[in-house]
Amino acid sequence: MKMETKFEGLEVGFDVPALPGMDESEISTPCLVLDLDALERNVKKMGDYAKAHGIRHRAHGKMHKSVDVLKLQQELGGAVGVCCQKVSEAEVFARGGIKDILVSNQVRDPAKIDRLARLPKYGARIIVCVDDVTNVKDLSAAAVKHATQLDCFVEVDCGAGRCGVVTPPEVVEIAKAIDAAEGLRFAGLQAYQGAMQHIVSYEERKAKTDAVVAQVTGVVEALKAVGLECELVSGAGTGSYYFETGSGVFNELQCGSYAFMDADYGRVHDQKGERIDKGEWENALFILTSVMSHAKSGKAICDAGLKAQSVDSGLPVIFGREDVKYIKCSDEHGVIEDSGNVLAINEKLRLVPGHCDPTCNVHDWYVGVRDGKVETVWPVSARGKAY
Amino acid sequence: MKMETKFEGLEVGFDVPALPGMDESEISTPCLVLDLDALERNVKKMGDYAKAHGIRHRAHGKMHKSVDVLKLQQELGGAVGVCCQKVSEAEVFARGGIKDILVSNQVRDPAKIDRLARLPKYGARIIVCVDDVTNVKDLSAAAVKHATQLDCFVEVDCGAGRCGVVTPPEVVEIAKAIDAAEGLRFAGLQAYQGAMQHIVSYEERKAKTDAVVAQVTGVVEALKAVGLECELVSGAGTGSYYFETGSGVFNELQCGSYAFMDADYGRVHDQKGERIDKGEWENALFILTSVMSHAKSGKAICDAGLKAQSVDSGLPVIFGREDVKYIKCSDEHGVIEDSGNVLAINEKLRLVPGHCDPTCNVHDWYVGVRDGKVETVWPVSARGKAY
Repeated sequence: MKMETKFEGLEVGFDVPALPGMDESEISTPCLVLDLDALERNVKKMGDYAKAHGIRHRAHGKMHKSVDVLKLQQELGGAVGVCCQKVSEAEVFARGGIKDILVSNQVRDPAKIDRLARLPKYGARIIVCVDDVTNVKDLSAAAVKHATQLDCFVEVDCGAGRCGVVTPPEVVEIAKAIDAAEGLRFAGLQAYQGAMQHIVSYEERKAKTDAVVAQVTGVVEALKAVGLECELVSGAGTGSYYFETGSGVFNELQCGSYAFMDADYGRVHDQKGERIDKGEWENALFILTSVMSHAKSGKAICDAGLKAQSVDSGLPVIFGREDVKYIKCSDEHGVIEDSGNVLAINEKLRLVPGHCDPTCNVHDWYVGVRDGKVETVWPVSARGKAY
Repeated sequence: MKMETKFEGLEVGFDVPALPGMDESEISTPCLVLDLDALERNVKKMGDYAKAHGIRHRAHGKMHKSVDVLKLQQELGGAVGVCCQKVSEAEVFARGGIKDILVSNQVRDPAKIDRLARLPKYGARIIVCVDDVTNVKDLSAAAVKHATQLDCFVEVDCGAGRCGVVTPPEVVEIAKAIDAAEGLRFAGLQAYQGAMQHIVSYEERKAKTDAVVAQVTGVVEALKAVGLECELVSGAGTGSYYFETGSGVFNELQCGSYAFMDADYGRVHDQKGERIDKGEWENALFILTSVMSHAKSGKAICDAGLKAQSVDSGLPVIFGREDVKYIKCSDEHGVIEDSGNVLAINEKLRLVPGHCDPTCNVHDWYVGVRDGKVETVWPVSARGKAY
């Protein structure tokens, strides 16, 4: 289930935070820890859901950037492949043996288009998103040059106001150009809205998704009217997948954060008004940190700061502790309110990061633990693959 | 002046964003770009300042995490060595040939203490900070075990409320314990306050530093009274170094950000009320980004988001452009207000990051450019060395 990782010559604490077989207490902090039991339960749950509802799940690899986690999602969770945001990420997944890869983003740089068009040679289906008809001829020329095929989605902007086109005529124009271009194949639609996933209220998320479904349905019909069928209509995230599943128009989910969870997603409510990290999904990802100074009463300092996480969506939350609170973050330190002075030097705490995606991107390794022991150490395979 | 970097087998766009000799327009984005002329001017200016004032400058390597930049600071800027925050960073600098290394932080984990105590074997002086008398025996035992010497600073908390002790009796107690411990040597004081550096008003920063100087002077006198001399009193940053220099008590500066600058530091005012990035220091560090979607009027989307930077101190600023503005950041995208629709697809922009330290930490490479050409590509040698 996992990639072979060569640990010979790697020094614990310098190259890797831990090695398989170590006790959890020996892990060098700060580092990312995966609760393997929780991760496997999350992965299996999403897989069972997709299977029961007859919908494809293409796991979002931009979240974890890990070939090993993706293989777990395929093997235990029935994921059909991966989506990611960058050509360099797609290269990592293609080299890692993943056979169905969607770059859920535009690729415009000529050098990157060339790299993208080479990727089908790894035996993978490659899909890319398009939101500008002038992009079509460049993608086509590269596919022809490498004698490969690129599948293309037209990206529908369903509320993010970022990439993508909005109206059926705009989508139809691009889809027709793709359909007519040598080396390309029109494969369907990308329709995902990130910010909407994080709306706390279930009803508000439902209302937003209903509007998206109506928009996308109109687009699909307009394409049909010109003879273009959407093989795939792909979108949805951890906060909305049940809406798209029941929509009758989406046939592929792109959930990512469900596997690890984070503090920001955890605050989202399910239909019963419960936080989704209190039943629907488990926290499987933690930043393991150690107390390294307690020179003042009431305040402990830990070793996980801005270089061990991204705080764009808020500070981390200390897992399983009500008595202490992470209240401030600087480059290499976290300040913990410890009014009872209960924390000891070298005591380890599990932090639930505010936002999993950019937090994973600052780390080189996932330390997988089970029953207090390090079972595996997985590289964050596509870490730093931003270009 | 630079480390040997082996580029054979590295693929542009996958492994490295650029190679020496390439045109700036060919760089794969997003990535970090150094304006080598500006960097060299900044480095030389700080070096000239320290020399003229007879004060040591120990460059803060936690900012850039680069052996190559540090060597430039030593060779062109007369830096006496490096300070950094983690044992793993100290290991990178020691292996890179740096001979005077201060870990300006506490080291409490037994495994890390052991690694620290081995570092003098690289021929480097190693200094570490202490803020708890119980730490002294662990450091001493490790130094004895490895037959090395660790120099120790007592860390004075001069307002951050984080690590360090506050009063002269607390400092004296720890210093005496260090002085009495086998394998350790009391070497002076660490007295740095980070947040104060970023206060916009020169007068307010001066008032804060005056208070720090008074506090540290009291500590130095209390130590003298028990027969302990401070070889080094170390502190100061880009926003305050002129105050410590003239204090009569500090004899070592720890400036870091001056070399690269960032948007948050740039807003700080000098004595004349001018921004310090408009004369005192130049922006030498940029996130190079490309426009990759412009599907809507008035809004361009670039390829540098949260995985290319840290936004803890605010969004990046587009360098040299008044007509366009970076207004929103998501994982892989930046939204740019472009009311005149002046930006073209694939157009490159230089972003000044909000906060240089954690931004450098997400990248693997610095692309050094001069006169529009890539002159060097330096690894971010200690990237991810958080544990």
